[in-house]
Amino acid sequence: MMAAGFPSAQAAEAAFYAAFENADYVAMMAVWSPDNDIECIHPLGERLMGTKAVGNSWRRMLSGGKRMRFSLTHTKRFQTDQLSIHILYENIIIAGRQQPPVIATNIYRFNGHGWHMILHHASPATDIGKADDMEDTVTAGPVIH
Amino acid sequence: MMAAGFPSAQAAEAAFYAAFENADYVAMMAVWSPDNDIECIHPLGERLMGTKAVGNSWRRMLSGGKRMRFSLTHTKRFQTDQLSIHILYENIIIAGRQQPPVIATNIYRFNGHGWHMILHHASPATDIGKADDMEDTVTAGPVIH
Repeated sequence: MMAAGFPSAQAAEAAFYAAFENADYVAMMAVWSPDNDIECIHPLGERLMGTKAVGNSWRRMLSGGKRMRFSLTHTKRFQTDQLSIHILYENIIIAGRQQPPVIATNIYRFNGHGWHMILHHASPATDIGKADDMEDTVTAGPVIH
Repeated sequence: MMAAGFPSAQAAEAAFYAAFENADYVAMMAVWSPDNDIECIHPLGERLMGTKAVGNSWRRMLSGGKRMRFSLTHTKRFQTDQLSIHILYENIIIAGRQQPPVIATNIYRFNGHGWHMILHHASPATDIGKADDMEDTVTAGPVIH
């Protein structure tokens, strides 16, 4: 468990998708900030606010066991000392079949000891998006200081 | 114009929805960060990255003229000196008819002089979301320091 939080937002994000793939509810909830100040929006789902609502949704979603594989692409990051915002595509394979991509905005907060997730906003993507210059957005954005 | 940015993230957000209601493209683009480091996801739309793609989408969306009225509810804010994250419901009326609500994650960044929008991620809401204690979420969250 990482009760004190993860050493970086990137580590928290890796743990989030590992827990998702492994259908590990306990590991999933360890990624989320332990205070009640969290929100989660699954694709076309309702807006879930607070530990109980968010936890219940993951308990349901992960109850089917391991079945999803994620690859994450086009991650854009806005990072400060206290908040890290990641916008990315979730490319999901279920039972060997590629699903339509999902756009996720994931936000992580530093609590003085470590990083936890505070927001997961996911929605269906119609296709892989347009960029003025896609090369610019494949890698992480600049760290803000 | 607010080339230097808005005095607060709340002021930028008010300007964003005013420009949306007024179908004012110039005012809308003044809300967005003038650098290329912006992203916009309209409900069920593609992920738009960069000034050109985001600007083109607003030019199209606002070309129909004034037709939408917004009321914003259940705004949750995570604020630091450099970033302000607002999660809220957009309750939209078009031609006198209430539309299904939209969930928006709006993010604003301070550039040293003022605030601009850097992300608008909007997606359809199935209904007004569940909270452990809705009263806790009606008002702004604590400011993070």
